[in-house]
Amino acid sequence: MSKTIPPDTFGQCPLPITQYDTVQLGHGSGGKMMNDLISKLFVWAFDNPMLQDMDDQAVLDIPSPDGKTGSVRLALSTDSFVVDPIFFPGGNIGELAVNGTVNDVCMSGARPLYLSAGFIIEEGFSLDELRRIVESMRDAARRAGVAIVTGDTKVVHKGKGDKVFINTAGIGIIEHSYAIGAKHIRPGDIILLSGTIADHGIAILSKREGLAFETSIESDTAPLNDLVRVILDAGGEAVHAMRDPTRGGLAATLNEFADAAGVGIRIRQDRIPIHPAVEGACEMLGLDPLYVANEGKVVVVVARDKSQAVLEAMRQHPLGQQAAIIGDITEENAGRVSMLTRIGSWRMVDRIVGEQLPRIC
Amino acid sequence: MSKTIPPDTFGQCPLPITQYDTVQLGHGSGGKMMNDLISKLFVWAFDNPMLQDMDDQAVLDIPSPDGKTGSVRLALSTDSFVVDPIFFPGGNIGELAVNGTVNDVCMSGARPLYLSAGFIIEEGFSLDELRRIVESMRDAARRAGVAIVTGDTKVVHKGKGDKVFINTAGIGIIEHSYAIGAKHIRPGDIILLSGTIADHGIAILSKREGLAFETSIESDTAPLNDLVRVILDAGGEAVHAMRDPTRGGLAATLNEFADAAGVGIRIRQDRIPIHPAVEGACEMLGLDPLYVANEGKVVVVVARDKSQAVLEAMRQHPLGQQAAIIGDITEENAGRVSMLTRIGSWRMVDRIVGEQLPRIC
Repeated sequence: MSKTIPPDTFGQCPLPITQYDTVQLGHGSGGKMMNDLISKLFVWAFDNPMLQDMDDQAVLDIPSPDGKTGSVRLALSTDSFVVDPIFFPGGNIGELAVNGTVNDVCMSGARPLYLSAGFIIEEGFSLDELRRIVESMRDAARRAGVAIVTGDTKVVHKGKGDKVFINTAGIGIIEHSYAIGAKHIRPGDIILLSGTIADHGIAILSKREGLAFETSIESDTAPLNDLVRVILDAGGEAVHAMRDPTRGGLAATLNEFADAAGVGIRIRQDRIPIHPAVEGACEMLGLDPLYVANEGKVVVVVARDKSQAVLEAMRQHPLGQQAAIIGDITEENAGRVSMLTRIGSWRMVDRIVGEQLPRIC
Repeated sequence: MSKTIPPDTFGQCPLPITQYDTVQLGHGSGGKMMNDLISKLFVWAFDNPMLQDMDDQAVLDIPSPDGKTGSVRLALSTDSFVVDPIFFPGGNIGELAVNGTVNDVCMSGARPLYLSAGFIIEEGFSLDELRRIVESMRDAARRAGVAIVTGDTKVVHKGKGDKVFINTAGIGIIEHSYAIGAKHIRPGDIILLSGTIADHGIAILSKREGLAFETSIESDTAPLNDLVRVILDAGGEAVHAMRDPTRGGLAATLNEFADAAGVGIRIRQDRIPIHPAVEGACEMLGLDPLYVANEGKVVVVVARDKSQAVLEAMRQHPLGQQAAIIGDITEENAGRVSMLTRIGSWRMVDRIVGEQLPRIC
């Protein structure tokens, strides 16, 4: 099974990319396998400082045309959406595609302005369903205050795709001068979470598997740009990092933070908001909610002295009513995430290796 | 077969989108069916002036952060690449994905700066082939002088995709104040073409069908941004429109121009450059080269008094050595493209309805 990738003429490709010869579902999971593929192939090949930061968006300096009046700072992000099923409780692939990229753009503190949309449609897909998806995209764009300004449509033969895949790319303008990004996290910082975890992943899974729960579980898909504006207004330069915990869930985001900043992370299980129905479903399905995807939540890392102010501001916002302080940043245990469980013991929260829930977004 | 799309709460959807209930291969062809789907669904739903221009990129005004020093003008474009086969004579899907978006961005006269890259990979795809594709993207980005700064990786189950699909989105800065776009074309303007037609489509088809020709036919995939810079340096504000004739070929581009500007277009068959081997292959396969995709050519519409200067400048560039004046713009026959054939008769060059060559890019 093992195979090394030979070096090429431009430099040594870190070998081996993985222990596999072929792409596995786990390479798209948000876990260790995906991280390996991205860092050892994409970041290696496309070598530039924006990619090396491994944030969910790139921050770009666009020079002013006259060369005198300073540059404009933009954020650029992209995501392809392959969620299965395409319609699920609380949303559909179109809404998800708009909100997902709006969220990745605004996690840099940028104000999202414009999106592109690329459709890869399987021959035979229902035009009526396509219309409903496109209408959801329109409504989501209105809600987020962005315009979908350019697009592309491709059709592949039946059996060479799966209904519809949607890529969105988004650009936003950065109107502050704060340094926001995982590498700016410091020991002593406080970790806030905007609300309940695992809603999106469990909503998808329940639909996919035909499960019925007593309480309906809906995806939390939502645009976070207005909540981010509130966070920045309250926290200013004390806001060190923001990320929406999508694929790989809260555990993946916290591990990415710990890696990027070279810090330790401690969280308390009893502080992490979760719907009882979602928690029950996770128990029944044998899933750890820390690893289940969210599509309308933000993890904020903020300097300790501003953490209460940011928390209170978040709680005033409709999308942050259940916001909570869930942990803090330490100098010790660099690169690791630990959780104080409800029963009072400490547990490591590692990154998963492969795939828990394929095609969740 | 016929079905109407019911109106929704936000406005009347132009009915019916098509005569079909489901998406057909022809909806991704670059012909009338695709145009119908785009204008009646996407442009209708995402309603905004940038989309309505129906250019291959959106031109955006980004306000300066201080609100005083004027705005920065950017071009944003996206394309998803689903070409089959992924490796073909003269290139592969990765190189195509970089060049394609670089070209769409620069057709507005923008200087492309940054790309995003989104991969949808089929489970089981060779990691070695993925590496070769990614290395081609890196090399193409270097050649075009752009950086790939953000990305996304999704994996779908075996049989739910086809090896790899790649979306790229690109942004460029517009450093001129010319009005470039199909709607700025005027009667009397001259039409230039940078080189031979149909190379890309025939290269793909020959590989796909296992055809062998006496002369090898290679894709013309290339970044056009440097050639565009030369064209703008020579033509300045006399350059009214540029477009790369990809899906649907030269015929689709000229028809789009005729529609957008409400003008007539006349071309001469004997002026259109074509490789003899490509022409022979088209004859053998029963294809009209006017409708076959190109991936490294540009059609330029320029005011008559600057057309010779632009032509000479193009011919000095490695990608424009075979550039030619192929026709002009008329007030009469608005919306129509006519061609004087080699045998001296006039022929209508209509837009194709559906699909000539699926998955050509």
